[in-house]
Amino acid sequence: MKEVDIVISGGRILTMDENDTRIQKGSLAIHGNTIVAVGDADDIEKEYYGGQRIDAKDSLVMPGLINAHTHAAMTCFRGIADDMELMDWLDNYIFPAEAKNVDPELAYWGSLLACAEMIKSGTTTFCDMYIFEEETAQAAKQAGVRCVIGEVLFDFPSPNVKTPEEGLAYTETLIKKWVDDPLVNIVVEPHALYTCSPTLLSRANALAERYQLPLAIHLLENRDESNLIMQKVGKKAVRFLKEIGCLNERFFAFHCVYMEDEDIRIFADHGCKVVHNPESNMKLASGVAPITNMLNAGIVVGLGTDGCASNNNLDMFQEMDSAAKLEKSSLLNPTVMSARTVLHMATSDGAKVLGLDGLVGTIKKGMKADIVIVNLNKPHLTPLYDEYSHLVYAVNGADADTVLINGRIVMKDRRLLTINEAEVMERVNRIAIRIRDSLKS
Amino acid sequence: MKEVDIVISGGRILTMDENDTRIQKGSLAIHGNTIVAVGDADDIEKEYYGGQRIDAKDSLVMPGLINAHTHAAMTCFRGIADDMELMDWLDNYIFPAEAKNVDPELAYWGSLLACAEMIKSGTTTFCDMYIFEEETAQAAKQAGVRCVIGEVLFDFPSPNVKTPEEGLAYTETLIKKWVDDPLVNIVVEPHALYTCSPTLLSRANALAERYQLPLAIHLLENRDESNLIMQKVGKKAVRFLKEIGCLNERFFAFHCVYMEDEDIRIFADHGCKVVHNPESNMKLASGVAPITNMLNAGIVVGLGTDGCASNNNLDMFQEMDSAAKLEKSSLLNPTVMSARTVLHMATSDGAKVLGLDGLVGTIKKGMKADIVIVNLNKPHLTPLYDEYSHLVYAVNGADADTVLINGRIVMKDRRLLTINEAEVMERVNRIAIRIRDSLKS
Repeated sequence: MKEVDIVISGGRILTMDENDTRIQKGSLAIHGNTIVAVGDADDIEKEYYGGQRIDAKDSLVMPGLINAHTHAAMTCFRGIADDMELMDWLDNYIFPAEAKNVDPELAYWGSLLACAEMIKSGTTTFCDMYIFEEETAQAAKQAGVRCVIGEVLFDFPSPNVKTPEEGLAYTETLIKKWVDDPLVNIVVEPHALYTCSPTLLSRANALAERYQLPLAIHLLENRDESNLIMQKVGKKAVRFLKEIGCLNERFFAFHCVYMEDEDIRIFADHGCKVVHNPESNMKLASGVAPITNMLNAGIVVGLGTDGCASNNNLDMFQEMDSAAKLEKSSLLNPTVMSARTVLHMATSDGAKVLGLDGLVGTIKKGMKADIVIVNLNKPHLTPLYDEYSHLVYAVNGADADTVLINGRIVMKDRRLLTINEAEVMERVNRIAIRIRDSLKS
Repeated sequence: MKEVDIVISGGRILTMDENDTRIQKGSLAIHGNTIVAVGDADDIEKEYYGGQRIDAKDSLVMPGLINAHTHAAMTCFRGIADDMELMDWLDNYIFPAEAKNVDPELAYWGSLLACAEMIKSGTTTFCDMYIFEEETAQAAKQAGVRCVIGEVLFDFPSPNVKTPEEGLAYTETLIKKWVDDPLVNIVVEPHALYTCSPTLLSRANALAERYQLPLAIHLLENRDESNLIMQKVGKKAVRFLKEIGCLNERFFAFHCVYMEDEDIRIFADHGCKVVHNPESNMKLASGVAPITNMLNAGIVVGLGTDGCASNNNLDMFQEMDSAAKLEKSSLLNPTVMSARTVLHMATSDGAKVLGLDGLVGTIKKGMKADIVIVNLNKPHLTPLYDEYSHLVYAVNGADADTVLINGRIVMKDRRLLTINEAEVMERVNRIAIRIRDSLKS
């Protein structure tokens, strides 16, 4: 018998590997931050003994979910304004609220609250774009959540940096600081084509190139943006990105609602990836992204919740449900975007989008131990015929019972082990008072 | 001080009344099955003393949700087949599984499981159409859940009745048996125009007329059905229903996806009501019902989850979220179907649809005490700027903490008080084994 740190014992294991291997009564051995063995419970437990043993009877064991696009600290603005025209919402609520309130304190506590919410709904990795991302990295580190973070870059000043140059320099500081961190990864993130000059885009691209990091951007979120870019650069957005040399396998884009066939072909040809944000696109009435066409073209698509001002939660289980249903509804075809497809988007394909495949997104020997254990012993999850169907159409975030990230148990039986939940809620509630007051003045 | 049975103390009360009254720190006095007072906590608690006191600090107190269309016992078929063409799904999975398996045992335990799931996600009233509805009534009675139930009527035999005449007689027996029950109400429910002859429809209508009960039917769920009815009766469905005299204020219809302007006008003119089923319509790729047009025409619209074979849960909080987002997405207009509108659909307007207004759907003196207490002290519900937004876009069913129906506490701090949860899950799991085996043979 070999002693390992943790054995997760006797659950239904959904590996999400290339063969969609499912193990009816399986066990997992974890040592350090790594999965060292996975298989039938009897076989594993003959060979491995866990310093800690987690009983997964009546539970489903799956890779942690990957939220491939969010703005974590925007939890502070959750529900501050809804059901409005996009420009009214942005110009009269979100932008003024951000300009008056976003500071390192808000970035840290808002991000830590997001981490609490994400762990409690089964997310183990998130990709973030916002302001003061050093604070977000610190919060993720504190929470023990894996992340890919990028300071938002645009032509105008942000509460953190006065110029695009400062933004690029800040990003480079993040890169150097976090280069060897086991949890925090950096992405270079220009905001969008309508907020970034071609020069800024090229410099951001060069920075990503230099460090071989991903480059990510909001792209073609709605029809107005599509028109705006045409006016601004005199050509279609994707063709423009191609011409300035941004498109390659490290490039991914958020939303991509107004992608036409030519855009999809260019993305596929260059190995670019897409993050689908169905709930945000629905709530802001942005349109429906042509995800099935993208998948048919061979583009890897991940899934993200977007920020809490436009969703208004970070629950990836609900996001999967919406992704599947929206696609069927908009194409009038119930066979598209199956439960299995959408679950891959939220796990193994999300990892590919973020450049973390080979590390996370599947349960396999040698992968990092980012694991969610879902308690199936509940009325709304009874009976069980098919695991994929259950996870997408019946489970919600509150069914995640125990979560491990990088081999560390960050939640046990719904109790957070890395975050003082009461403290973080109290801090954000205090920040919300200041936000509410700022909108009155 | 007057002594009452229960005082719910110190919560944010969302009354859902005509004035959308919200009370920041309110209390409720309940005696017997009735709300006897509601107002500011200080005022109420000067006047009333509760034999039982429920602390609602940090909580939101609201009317119980009304699921206006489901097939409760179909919990037994939850996730048995997904992501398929409608006819493949019906002919090769649902219909054979039902023909071989639906019996009083399945109807009772499946309905009781549904009641457990509904209480645990904040639903206090449901409207049901299925087979062996006497068993569903018994289950609802056991669970203490308010219901409006109807035996499904069609031209062909069901596992319960051999002929339409037997179906009508069974319905009349239900009516006589339950006429004075405080929780169980009866509706006459022909299945659909494509499964019921004009004679059956007229007799069903006459039965509803005789007892002044509601008449409810599936209507225009998808384009095929719309075409089928045109072929079968030689005219448009709604015009046909009008001509045979079915349309009046007691009539309501489920789905109504393919309603045209003329149909909407006829419904509005006759005071007919509609139940919207967005998640089922999305998952089965049925299309998007023109709800905003219906609301603009003055039609009262409720909300329902449909059965668990096509959703696959009974969570009305998630259904509200989907209803709001689907409408915005399909009309490319973020201002339609506001959080407040959709919350009325799931409470006060749902009560009007089912003919229960004046009894439930709002928190008001004299109404029956059907109440949900939502625990707000959670990361994903922090901070709180607007109660309506939170309930529709951030809360999910698992946030319902305590539920009262007809003045009786049926769940306290998420523990069911009327249902043995372990037993009902075990019984349904056993039934599921028989269902799975039956599909192999």
